[in-house]
Amino acid sequence: MSSTVGQVIKCRAAVAWEAGKPLVIEEVEVAPPQANEVRVKILFTSLCHTDVYFWEAKGQTPLFPRIFGHEAGGIVESVGEGVTDLKPGDHVLPVFTGECKECRHCKSEESNMCDLLRINTDRGVMLSDGKTRFSKNGQPIYHFVGTSTFSEYTVVHVGCLAKINPAAPLDKVCVLSCGISTGLGATLNVAKPKKGQSVAVFGLGAVGLAAAEGARIAGASRIIGVDLNSSRFEEAKKFGVTEFVNPKDHDKPVHQVLAEMTDGGVDRAVECTGSIQAMISAFECVHDGWGVAVLVGVPNKDDSFKTHPINLLNERTLKGTFFGNYKPRTDIPDVVEKYMNKELELDKFITHAITFSEINKAFEYMLHGKSIRCIIRMDA
Amino acid sequence: MSSTVGQVIKCRAAVAWEAGKPLVIEEVEVAPPQANEVRVKILFTSLCHTDVYFWEAKGQTPLFPRIFGHEAGGIVESVGEGVTDLKPGDHVLPVFTGECKECRHCKSEESNMCDLLRINTDRGVMLSDGKTRFSKNGQPIYHFVGTSTFSEYTVVHVGCLAKINPAAPLDKVCVLSCGISTGLGATLNVAKPKKGQSVAVFGLGAVGLAAAEGARIAGASRIIGVDLNSSRFEEAKKFGVTEFVNPKDHDKPVHQVLAEMTDGGVDRAVECTGSIQAMISAFECVHDGWGVAVLVGVPNKDDSFKTHPINLLNERTLKGTFFGNYKPRTDIPDVVEKYMNKELELDKFITHAITFSEINKAFEYMLHGKSIRCIIRMDA
Ligand SMILES: NC(=O)c1ccc[n+]([C@@H]2O[C@H](COP(=O)([O-])OP(=O)(O)OC[C@H]3O[C@@H](n4cnc5c(N)ncnc54)[C@H](O)[C@@H]3O)[C@@H](O)[C@H]2O)c1
Ligand SMILES: NC(=O)c1ccc[n+]([C@@H]2O[C@H](COP(=O)([O-])OP(=O)(O)OC[C@H]3O[C@@H](n4cnc5c(N)ncnc54)[C@H](O)[C@@H]3O)[C@@H](O)[C@H]2O)c1
Ligand SMILES: [Zn+2]
Ligand SMILES: [Zn+2]
Ligand SMILES: [Zn+2]
Ligand SMILES: [Zn+2]
Repeated sequence: MSSTVGQVIKCRAAVAWEAGKPLVIEEVEVAPPQANEVRVKILFTSLCHTDVYFWEAKGQTPLFPRIFGHEAGGIVESVGEGVTDLKPGDHVLPVFTGECKECRHCKSEESNMCDLLRINTDRGVMLSDGKTRFSKNGQPIYHFVGTSTFSEYTVVHVGCLAKINPAAPLDKVCVLSCGISTGLGATLNVAKPKKGQSVAVFGLGAVGLAAAEGARIAGASRIIGVDLNSSRFEEAKKFGVTEFVNPKDHDKPVHQVLAEMTDGGVDRAVECTGSIQAMISAFECVHDGWGVAVLVGVPNKDDSFKTHPINLLNERTLKGTFFGNYKPRTDIPDVVEKYMNKELELDKFITHAITFSEINKAFEYMLHGKSIRCIIRMDA
Repeated sequence: MSSTVGQVIKCRAAVAWEAGKPLVIEEVEVAPPQANEVRVKILFTSLCHTDVYFWEAKGQTPLFPRIFGHEAGGIVESVGEGVTDLKPGDHVLPVFTGECKECRHCKSEESNMCDLLRINTDRGVMLSDGKTRFSKNGQPIYHFVGTSTFSEYTVVHVGCLAKINPAAPLDKVCVLSCGISTGLGATLNVAKPKKGQSVAVFGLGAVGLAAAEGARIAGASRIIGVDLNSSRFEEAKKFGVTEFVNPKDHDKPVHQVLAEMTDGGVDRAVECTGSIQAMISAFECVHDGWGVAVLVGVPNKDDSFKTHPINLLNERTLKGTFFGNYKPRTDIPDVVEKYMNKELELDKFITHAITFSEINKAFEYMLHGKSIRCIIRMDA
């Protein structure tokens, strides 16, 4: 690998030239990493909803041509000036939000919302010089959330790379880069159910199923799945979800249905839908006195969270989380260890596997609700 | 005292015959305590806003004639059947919300919202038999929140009495029965600022000043008082409040003013106003990543708490509390000890002292915003 150090690398990348149009596998140029940057050879990547939203660019700022992708596992090819934490050969997971280790957030025990490297979906360039590291025939190609993993090589800020156990299988742990960690951490780090407590999970997509996996690990006695789409329930059984509620099957508001099932309310609720109505229900369904509700879903710009303040005064807690409150560099290596120790199950999230040249299939699977995670193998 | 055991006691009580009309000191009859009840000789009582609200009965259900009063200190005169925790001579503080020690709330580490003895402002009778223990010439007189301390003797459920150190001066610690514990606990038990953090307190009445006292005890570096009434600021200096914001003095929303003063937001905010606008501002003024806002004020029936859900996703926490999350029997004796050890200052809350026959003066002081707490001495 050393022959490429300091050189432009030519490699394959899946370029999104236009909103909503199939990605095109192109030969692109990947410039060497600059100060505090790392060039990573991606071995496996997976598709997350956020890629799809920004590729569709319906409610989002369009920025094209762009290389999407933010869930992946790879190996460091070379490092830029000032990078001391990583060296060529290290195994890494890129993460869409970073950890500079210097700011107030990074120094706080609680926050993972780094001032410097917090997610920025509208920036398509590197922080240091405002330029892209990708180009094709001299035309710059934009980055996506600092990761752009739909490329055989990518350049990432050192603060957005978690260095993990090299024994961990990258085709499995790559899913920890985003959605699975988000749901898992929402339960384990934020909702924190005690052993034997009941947990309701709103939304049984990848994030919600990961929240359920967190509840299983925490020893929840009941895991109640709530989804508007009953076809999610069969799959969810594999994730320890034992009871199901489709709000459409009831005349009463869903928080009342849950309160009746649980003698006054669930102990914890984790909302993983993005629907404001589900956010409000997830809050109102927790038990007074001790209930905790955690919001994970990304709402619409104009949404308003509304509730009667007495629901708060009755000693309920409402919180939100971003990336499951995990600090990418500090915490994600430990999550990988949980998988290695068989405490955390990841294989059940992986429903499909394809080669890089078939990447548009991953979009199809997701758009048709067929996949939880589809792993894309870069070397084929 | 033993001569009165099992007998009806005739004594003085301040009876509210009609909404908003001065109380009248009457000779009343106080029946002996029934099962799980305790008859208490009240030595000192103080007036809280909640007494005034229900006496005015503007937004509240009118229930008259009634004996108000719920902040007090007294001595057990006799106990009913089945009472083993208390005996004649014990020093007690009556509390408007109880602790049965049996229900899910009492058994939970977090909740103090006892299923059996939770506050009920509309019930004017004892739980066991639905009758009053007070009468005058055979006419029943209603109780108030299970305490009715504006009487030389009162009957209280054993679950609503905190047994305290007999060395504690009842003319001081009586204020721990309600408002002061509420504000103090909101900060110490719920907002839990770390040493050196900043705390904003919305509303500088008795409850807010007690929240500030909690922030002082917790070692907050900055205590920022927010009130629409700037005349509160002078008094608040005695409570460790060093900075003041009157929302009326600014063109921008108050949460922005606070964010600018504190590099992005305060670490903790405690709302003690009852105003829905202050509740929303108290939430929106806390720092993303780690900020915690606690609601204490009692809202209006039709209020709606509204915020953009992104304020939650940015890792803010919103909670509410009732009686500062203190369990009356388990925790209040320890709060009294804090006063005895000089960790907690109470004397500064006591601005006035009067005799029982002057009780209507206490209403005047409160209605004109002159007092924080006015102590009423029963034996004069
Ligand atoms: N906070 C973060 O850091 C973070 C990270 C990744 C994803 N997310 C967000 O998490 C959410 C879930 O992501 P996903 O990939 O699992 O999505 P998904 O679309 O696969 O799953 C969402 C599920 O919610 C269900 N749903 C929608 N509205 C509902 C309602 N009102 N009641 C009950 N169920 C409802 C849908 O039927 C679907 O099954 C999204 O909003 C996503 O943007 C947040
Ligand atoms: N949760 C509980 O267990 C509990 C117990 C006791 C009292 N309370 C409630 O606590 C609140 C405070 O009680 P108190 O006796 O101190 O009341 P108070 O009336 O003495 O003080 C309230 C203060 O808030 C200020 N205020 C009002 N609206 C404001 C706004 N929008 N912004 C800033 N300041 C504002 C007022 O000027 C006043 O100084 C009340 O709502 C009371 O009902 C709750
Ligand atoms: Zn940082
Ligand atoms: Zn993602
Ligand atoms: Zn109880
Ligand atoms: Zn009170």
